[in-house]
Amino acid sequence: MIVDCAIYEEGKRRDGHVDLSHAYDERHQPGKFVWIGLYEPTEEEFASLRSEFNLHPLAVEDAINAHQRPKVEVYEDMLFIVLKTARYVDPTEVITLGELLVFLGDDFVITVRHGEASSLAPVREELERDPKHLSRGPGAVLHAVLDRVVDDYQPAIEGLETDIDEVEEELFSAGRSNPAERIYRLQREVLGFRKATAPLVDPVARLAMGKYGHIHPEMHDYFRDVNDHLMRTRDQLDAMRDLLAGSLQANLAQVAVRQNDDVRRISAWVAIIAVPTAIAGIYGMNFEHMPELKWEFGYPAAVLVMLTICSLLYRGFKRAGWL
Amino acid sequence: MIVDCAIYEEGKRRDGHVDLSHAYDERHQPGKFVWIGLYEPTEEEFASLRSEFNLHPLAVEDAINAHQRPKVEVYEDMLFIVLKTARYVDPTEVITLGELLVFLGDDFVITVRHGEASSLAPVREELERDPKHLSRGPGAVLHAVLDRVVDDYQPAIEGLETDIDEVEEELFSAGRSNPAERIYRLQREVLGFRKATAPLVDPVARLAMGKYGHIHPEMHDYFRDVNDHLMRTRDQLDAMRDLLAGSLQANLAQVAVRQNDDVRRISAWVAIIAVPTAIAGIYGMNFEHMPELKWEFGYPAAVLVMLTICSLLYRGFKRAGWL
Amino acid sequence: MIVDCAIYEEGKRRDGHVDLSHAYDERHQPGKFVWIGLYEPTEEEFASLRSEFNLHPLAVEDAINAHQRPKVEVYEDMLFIVLKTARYVDPTEVITLGELLVFLGDDFVITVRHGEASSLAPVREELERDPKHLSRGPGAVLHAVLDRVVDDYQPAIEGLETDIDEVEEELFSAGRSNPAERIYRLQREVLGFRKATAPLVDPVARLAMGKYGHIHPEMHDYFRDVNDHLMRTRDQLDAMRDLLAGSLQANLAQVAVRQNDDVRRISAWVAIIAVPTAIAGIYGMNFEHMPELKWEFGYPAAVLVMLTICSLLYRGFKRAGWL
Amino acid sequence: MIVDCAIYEEGKRRDGHVDLSHAYDERHQPGKFVWIGLYEPTEEEFASLRSEFNLHPLAVEDAINAHQRPKVEVYEDMLFIVLKTARYVDPTEVITLGELLVFLGDDFVITVRHGEASSLAPVREELERDPKHLSRGPGAVLHAVLDRVVDDYQPAIEGLETDIDEVEEELFSAGRSNPAERIYRLQREVLGFRKATAPLVDPVARLAMGKYGHIHPEMHDYFRDVNDHLMRTRDQLDAMRDLLAGSLQANLAQVAVRQNDDVRRISAWVAIIAVPTAIAGIYGMNFEHMPELKWEFGYPAAVLVMLTICSLLYRGFKRAGWL
Amino acid sequence: MIVDCAIYEEGKRRDGHVDLSHAYDERHQPGKFVWIGLYEPTEEEFASLRSEFNLHPLAVEDAINAHQRPKVEVYEDMLFIVLKTARYVDPTEVITLGELLVFLGDDFVITVRHGEASSLAPVREELERDPKHLSRGPGAVLHAVLDRVVDDYQPAIEGLETDIDEVEEELFSAGRSNPAERIYRLQREVLGFRKATAPLVDPVARLAMGKYGHIHPEMHDYFRDVNDHLMRTRDQLDAMRDLLAGSLQANLAQVAVRQNDDVRRISAWVAIIAVPTAIAGIYGMNFEHMPELKWEFGYPAAVLVMLTICSLLYRGFKRAGWL
Repeated sequence: MIVDCAIYEEGKRRDGHVDLSHAYDERHQPGKFVWIGLYEPTEEEFASLRSEFNLHPLAVEDAINAHQRPKVEVYEDMLFIVLKTARYVDPTEVITLGELLVFLGDDFVITVRHGEASSLAPVREELERDPKHLSRGPGAVLHAVLDRVVDDYQPAIEGLETDIDEVEEELFSAGRSNPAERIYRLQREVLGFRKATAPLVDPVARLAMGKYGHIHPEMHDYFRDVNDHLMRTRDQLDAMRDLLAGSLQANLAQVAVRQNDDVRRISAWVAIIAVPTAIAGIYGMNFEHMPELKWEFGYPAAVLVMLTICSLLYRGFKRAGWL
Repeated sequence: MIVDCAIYEEGKRRDGHVDLSHAYDERHQPGKFVWIGLYEPTEEEFASLRSEFNLHPLAVEDAINAHQRPKVEVYEDMLFIVLKTARYVDPTEVITLGELLVFLGDDFVITVRHGEASSLAPVREELERDPKHLSRGPGAVLHAVLDRVVDDYQPAIEGLETDIDEVEEELFSAGRSNPAERIYRLQREVLGFRKATAPLVDPVARLAMGKYGHIHPEMHDYFRDVNDHLMRTRDQLDAMRDLLAGSLQANLAQVAVRQNDDVRRISAWVAIIAVPTAIAGIYGMNFEHMPELKWEFGYPAAVLVMLTICSLLYRGFKRAGWL
Repeated sequence: MIVDCAIYEEGKRRDGHVDLSHAYDERHQPGKFVWIGLYEPTEEEFASLRSEFNLHPLAVEDAINAHQRPKVEVYEDMLFIVLKTARYVDPTEVITLGELLVFLGDDFVITVRHGEASSLAPVREELERDPKHLSRGPGAVLHAVLDRVVDDYQPAIEGLETDIDEVEEELFSAGRSNPAERIYRLQREVLGFRKATAPLVDPVARLAMGKYGHIHPEMHDYFRDVNDHLMRTRDQLDAMRDLLAGSLQANLAQVAVRQNDDVRRISAWVAIIAVPTAIAGIYGMNFEHMPELKWEFGYPAAVLVMLTICSLLYRGFKRAGWL
Repeated sequence: MIVDCAIYEEGKRRDGHVDLSHAYDERHQPGKFVWIGLYEPTEEEFASLRSEFNLHPLAVEDAINAHQRPKVEVYEDMLFIVLKTARYVDPTEVITLGELLVFLGDDFVITVRHGEASSLAPVREELERDPKHLSRGPGAVLHAVLDRVVDDYQPAIEGLETDIDEVEEELFSAGRSNPAERIYRLQREVLGFRKATAPLVDPVARLAMGKYGHIHPEMHDYFRDVNDHLMRTRDQLDAMRDLLAGSLQANLAQVAVRQNDDVRRISAWVAIIAVPTAIAGIYGMNFEHMPELKWEFGYPAAVLVMLTICSLLYRGFKRAGWL
Repeated sequence: MIVDCAIYEEGKRRDGHVDLSHAYDERHQPGKFVWIGLYEPTEEEFASLRSEFNLHPLAVEDAINAHQRPKVEVYEDMLFIVLKTARYVDPTEVITLGELLVFLGDDFVITVRHGEASSLAPVREELERDPKHLSRGPGAVLHAVLDRVVDDYQPAIEGLETDIDEVEEELFSAGRSNPAERIYRLQREVLGFRKATAPLVDPVARLAMGKYGHIHPEMHDYFRDVNDHLMRTRDQLDAMRDLLAGSLQANLAQVAVRQNDDVRRISAWVAIIAVPTAIAGIYGMNFEHMPELKWEFGYPAAVLVMLTICSLLYRGFKRAGWL
């Protein structure tokens, strides 16, 4: 589906609706470029773009099928960039990933969204408000898109951090919960998120160093800034991974300690009840000569002894922290 | 065993059966190359190829014995490539690996399959349907073979992912299963699979960068595409390895928690049965002066007390989650 | 907030109060440079600096918002350095991080503090006492600031080391504490601290090798010295991380051993009380022909047997280390 | 001890016994080289070689004392190679390492064996059967020795793999064995073996790339082949290390699960015996009005109730998998 | 404290006592150099050296304060080397580290010892016995010192290895010890030792490659030899670290298995004592019609049954390995 198609001249958008054929004609003029936005295009929808912009069949295949590794690829006369967008869905504590692909030439930029990738309309509007920036050409568009995608990693990171904080609290609370499953699932999200972001660090660093063409030199510092945020994301995910591994270990200790507490509490009660049972057993013996049995207050005395021992035991266990 | 032998001229297959000696003669003409396919050849079967194509004895030895590490080797006038094919056998959750070896010169390509490696006939047919691509020479054949092998990794990866999902579900289900063995065996498969694929990433990257000869420059982007899939496979296997390590840890916590649940359930029942035993013991004492013993409803009263305490305990334990 | 603004001429501070506009005029003269110190500036406060020193908008954004990754960035005509300061708060065993940003040109240096970052007044005073050093220009200021920040890591490291020592003692003491939570929290601090320092090692090494301009060649050895301390910090944090991982593991063993000790102690007492109960049960049987029951000293004999067995068991368990 | 000393001329061995001084004279003639084999030589035995071949004192020291790290060193006019040989001793599941050192010049090769390193006589015989190969000079000898050493790693690897398979079976068998010790000891062997082989990968790769002199260019492919086997060995050892780490973890789960099984089996029996005890206790009470006590079939009825409850419990536990 | 000060001329020591000022004068003559040895010098003691040899203030600061990371630093006209010496103190199983710093110029070498670093007198004596070696200048002194320091790592390594062997034996012995603390403390020593040695590997490799000046080319092979020993030390420490991590894991399994053994032994005894208690309970019931109670040999028969069952259970448990 073609979502938007616009011609930019010296950073300003040409008014009114623009159709593809029109865009094809105009883009070759100096100072102009076109930006075509697509959402989950079919092969047919892509056919015209493919021949007009001479897109490499492999890149087109990637753009239609999605499910690629994040990457930056140089083709003869264009760059092809694959990005993963991330959104944190809180109730289920899951990171949903979308895919955003960009074709970048000297006078065109094509953006293709797949799945959960959020609309680029706000990015476009913001850019159009800064014609000076836009006049740096398609590279400015790529930067704006990349910047938005990478900025959107931060709320996802924060969502994960909040959940990790919650897990920590649960882990060390007095309660008896076993957050093993939750830790494991967070670990899976962190690993998946890392797989979606870390491979971008190196190619974006190369963009920032101006190793690839098609990008206005004044944009390099901007790409370095994006790269910085990417590295921060990666560092944060690495630290989370280490923390979660540690919390799985700590959880084992917590579970073991709680089991031990239970064993001791149970044992204390067993001891408290075993003593009167033993005493009762003794006075249940059938010896003929057991003077206590004939005492008038033998029975209450025996019960008193039982109660005394039980309460002493109870207090002792209480003091020792077993109860 | 020689499976197929064909001469290609400007990307089109020469009709009719072609025997080896014929192929030897023709290949030197410009725009022509031969593709010879073998399955587990013996040393004798290989002898003629060896002298005709001047294959290096070490490469020939590897091709006959198989069991090599995946690699790309440059010999004076040819490339020698070793690939591992992978197939996921679901009922046993095992990855079976085959081996595929390719000799590549300017005017010949020899493919040798070993073990489980699946037939290359469909690859050949598909290629023959695209003479333009085939006219780029033996490199196009290598790419098609490599592409097929690497594409076939994906179902195996997905098979593993499905099993990991199943294990996760088993792990955190209410049931009492201990998936330690299954996790361990999946870990072994993941490690073996990684060993069969990861060593290819670097040499295929070099193929993509055109570091080796014998490959038409237009093929470089295609090899980069394959390399991308290889890196994706490696990343997926790495993430699986980390996940499985985490799930072994989580399993320990699950086992411990379940044991704790058992200990508490058992203890609760012990407590419930210990109380009437103790009371019965008390009324089994032989004191002469125990007024309750003479009461008419002493016995039912005692039994009632026992039942009351037992049911109170039962309810208490139920509420505390011990039962 | 502008904290201080000074002009240095041949390493000596111009007397009296200096306002910004004055500083702007003077800095271009050879041998002079200005040092402006800010604390959490607003965008408005920064506006004048930005246009005067031609600061890059991305760097300015970082300086105002803080929360950056530690880094050294080269812009056309200046360096931009982000540092994390660390302070160890003992009662809560937490590392609080502040942020310090430095803009460095040939004739100016701007320092911006955020959050917990401690005042640079002492650094400034110390520098002003060594005009020869200061006459090497803004690089000398950067070094002094960096040196202070990195030196301040050491007390934080030592605070962590002390806590790790305490945890170790707790871990292997006879007491029953479970330091899992404390170990985990220290681990989190170590990971966070590492994230705040390790990314600086490479860029500071490049400063030391003179890869960036704006820095007097005589300063290179000084930056290498700082880098050395940074690497030492990183090594120490790495070793701590490994140690804490090990102590989580050792803790598991300690918890398990203590549980085992409890199980044995409990079992011993159960055995000691089960024996008299069984004997009493036997003499509580109602057989008509039980000669012992008629013995005059049957009862005391039975009690004696019980006591003897109990005390033998007690001694046996004591000797075996179960009690 | 000098084991063998031979002069080779155009790849053919000079007949008859050759003594050292003779060898010294002849080696300088074009197309000739000497191969001297030693076993654990003393300093005295080495003295003559040292001065004749101008061996570096540090290399000589290494050759006499052994216990070196595997390495390839370039001295002014010779190469010095240290290899570790490995042999798997099955009953004790131990890898015994020997040491093999090679001095290599343009017209000489000296091999020194230490400890368990097996005789090179078969290597020499095989080489002498292929004069063409031998005529490539001392490099061919080095390759043959290296090839043999590295080929001999494979049986050791297979021995370890067999043991790991056995451990796996033991680990997940129904039996109650605790293979922790065996896993640990295998881990130690794998680590030791890795230490003895992995450091060779890089220097042998350099041999294969022709980075060192003294080696005939036609030998490069042969060294690459050896390097391939070395890398395979390293990959296998790495995978084993990971597998064994995983199996230690899995073992913990197995032990815990088995303990849980025991706890449940024991508890079931305790429950089965506690019920008749409680019932017997109740009918052992001394209330005057207990109608059941007077029933004619009260006793057998009580016993029947006990047996019924016990068998119901037994069946219930059996069905629940506790027994 | 100045420990020794000597002038060497063509490798031979000038006779008699030499004071500093004398040394300063002579060192400039060709073929001469001075070697000054210090032990924990104060700033005052260092002042004269500092100005004479134009030592860099940062290096001097390091030399006086010690506690540096091991390193090799190049200053304009000298090298500055920081080494850690290691000594294993057996009864406490602790590695004590000392520090040794070397300033190296073309005609001087200054060695500074701190803390536990052992005397260099024997190194000096040995060197003076080999004037040819010494005539290669200060580099020969540096090598001799470095060689000694690195050689002294070996006994420390062996001390650790012996302790690890002991721990292994303890770990898998029949005894009940929990070596968790000992393993943990060894781990700490290994990590600390590694931190003190591994950072030297790279700079010493650069010394061996002649990347730094001030060192006679003939010394390069010697430094490579030292580097080899350093790498061996590092490899050994890495393997130890892995082994100790494995043994902590194995220890967990051992502790769990032993606990399981205890639980089973205890349970067996509980069963053995529960059976007679239950039987006694049954014959303690007060039913009027219990024929056994009237049998003449009812009582001994009941006791016999009890004993029989107990001994059968005992034998059964014995055979099953529970007792």
